[in-house]
Amino acid sequence: MKICVLPGDGIGPEIMAQAVRVLNALDLQFEMEEALVGGCAVDATGNPLPEATLQLARAADAILLGAVGGPKWDSHPRNQRPELGLLGIRKELALFANLRPAILYPELANASTLKPEIVAGLDILIVRELTGDIYFGQPRGIELREVNGESQRVGWNTMIYAEYEIRRILRVAFEAAMKRGKRLCSVDKMNVLETTQLWRDIAIEVSKEFPEVELTHMLVDNAAMQLVRNPKQFDVMVTGNMFGDILSDEASMLTGSIGMLPSASLNADNKGMYEPSHGSAPDIAGKDLANPLATILSAAMMLRYTFNQEAAAQRIERAVKKVLAQGYRTGDIYEPGTKRVGTREMGDAVLAAL
Amino acid sequence: MKICVLPGDGIGPEIMAQAVRVLNALDLQFEMEEALVGGCAVDATGNPLPEATLQLARAADAILLGAVGGPKWDSHPRNQRPELGLLGIRKELALFANLRPAILYPELANASTLKPEIVAGLDILIVRELTGDIYFGQPRGIELREVNGESQRVGWNTMIYAEYEIRRILRVAFEAAMKRGKRLCSVDKMNVLETTQLWRDIAIEVSKEFPEVELTHMLVDNAAMQLVRNPKQFDVMVTGNMFGDILSDEASMLTGSIGMLPSASLNADNKGMYEPSHGSAPDIAGKDLANPLATILSAAMMLRYTFNQEAAAQRIERAVKKVLAQGYRTGDIYEPGTKRVGTREMGDAVLAAL
Ligand SMILES: CC(C)[C@H](C(=O)O)[C@@H](O)C(=O)O
Ligand SMILES: CC(C)[C@H](C(=O)O)[C@@H](O)C(=O)O
Repeated sequence: MKICVLPGDGIGPEIMAQAVRVLNALDLQFEMEEALVGGCAVDATGNPLPEATLQLARAADAILLGAVGGPKWDSHPRNQRPELGLLGIRKELALFANLRPAILYPELANASTLKPEIVAGLDILIVRELTGDIYFGQPRGIELREVNGESQRVGWNTMIYAEYEIRRILRVAFEAAMKRGKRLCSVDKMNVLETTQLWRDIAIEVSKEFPEVELTHMLVDNAAMQLVRNPKQFDVMVTGNMFGDILSDEASMLTGSIGMLPSASLNADNKGMYEPSHGSAPDIAGKDLANPLATILSAAMMLRYTFNQEAAAQRIERAVKKVLAQGYRTGDIYEPGTKRVGTREMGDAVLAAL
Repeated sequence: MKICVLPGDGIGPEIMAQAVRVLNALDLQFEMEEALVGGCAVDATGNPLPEATLQLARAADAILLGAVGGPKWDSHPRNQRPELGLLGIRKELALFANLRPAILYPELANASTLKPEIVAGLDILIVRELTGDIYFGQPRGIELREVNGESQRVGWNTMIYAEYEIRRILRVAFEAAMKRGKRLCSVDKMNVLETTQLWRDIAIEVSKEFPEVELTHMLVDNAAMQLVRNPKQFDVMVTGNMFGDILSDEASMLTGSIGMLPSASLNADNKGMYEPSHGSAPDIAGKDLANPLATILSAAMMLRYTFNQEAAAQRIERAVKKVLAQGYRTGDIYEPGTKRVGTREMGDAVLAAL
């Protein structure tokens, strides 16, 4: 069980340290190797995804990532942006299936900005396509063109999906729905975009393979509304890379505790990259304030999806539930009457609960 | 003051009838002519935007629209979709500036799914570019291509913006911010999309013309989160057509009363199309259940922006506030203790309050 560990930037190293402690406390044999990605890799090598990192990631069975990015690299040229490290790994390793659960932990119900009756018991899985769409489509660029009789800058990108890309992500989503509530909502903008008309057509075709799953369709603008209006209407949602970026972040914020939410990005063989849904939070980096639970839960997802260690995954998840029940809270989820702890202490608590 | 009245589909005719009554009750001289657009136009002529309608719209100073679309036309070919009527008017009349307020009326605070302290006093203006972006970009389509050694369907669209398009919508947004809280948040995805890198560059250039306005930038995924986390942090938001479609719907749903929200789509000379932010609600069409207030408030926006009749606009807006204070509610905003009324009765109440 070879794991490539990529702490990344900002709070990445702190939260990763706790996840690694938790993994090491299990009675399993991991081989872990650490490498640079994102801003720290730019600083060290000028490249957000150094060749050595890519090789290590390829050789590993799974990748555990902290977070990348920060204002420090905002003024760097586009080819030195930390995010390119992330996008590069996704694309190079064909990690096309991004699974992002949005779960409300009962102990943290108050953290949501939504009324308790709207979000109590919330448990949505968003399946986002991750290696296609406008993120990677060619052609793209900024150039001078003749517009209205003068030379002007024009920027453009290409949204594009081929049949096989849509089909494989839909299959992942249908399979996920089979293991859950058997309801799948496919999100598109078919009334405007041909790309997503094809998406809808193929969703309908693939649904024939999964007669037990109830497939519905929703336009992306309506989906953004329905997530606010009545999020519990959803079981599994599936959508493209761009819409998935927006909707999965919106959905995770419904819980009010994005510091608790893991994610998995899988290829066709269940090799995967696992990372918290939150960002690198440069403002609190290095201060022992960050919540390590999303990273720890990402490690649990890794055990489940890549290593088929369901028991160990559940052991971690139970430990996390226990520390919440015991009242341990990092600053992001703190409320009066609970025990405020730092990143490391939260790791201690999880280890104790294991 | 020539108005082209387009009732459209679903609840469109009912809500429009009330807005027309309100306009006729003012001591102003309007010339109103009605025409077909959307699904009803498809039924009558096979074309969602008949030439006669387009001519009337061009000849008018302002267009008042109800709503278009419905499941009835879902199986029609793409060139007969009701939405094409709307998109066609926007494009043909160069209505590039879409203004969508998201306002929480104190009387309707309970309607929101968000906690009162998060949304009380909410007053955001979303400025959405409306005639460019991936909505209209060429090339686009679905075709068979050779992919991975076999013939597959591929769908694609083009996100594209020229400098002048970005500059003019940014100016509208800065001007709107000048008349409000002087804070403008420009939303993009510059870490991935070149088109929106250009957007951000030009936003910064245009900001030099408006030194009093504080310009900030936010990535679209973060914006979708922040609208849920703390919507009151925003004054004016500006973004492209696609992101604006998603974020403006999300923002309007924060109020819980999308039946109250008007919108304006303006060209460079303040000629405009005015319409409620909600859809055609085919499920309640013809039942005298729909809320006509968003359409009535759209008529007020028309008086303000196109006809420069600020006093008359405020007169309508005051009347709407008064009927809310009096407790009149259509089903969408009803709560125990208020007076449930139908579409026409709500119109009566506004007329009485005028
Ligand atoms: C950092 C960025 C490129 C990335 C994305 O847009 O995919 C992030 O927002 C995410 O959702 O993982
Ligand atoms: C009906 C549809 C084409 C339209 C859009 O996407 O612009 C609608 O959602 C809107 O926001 O006005």
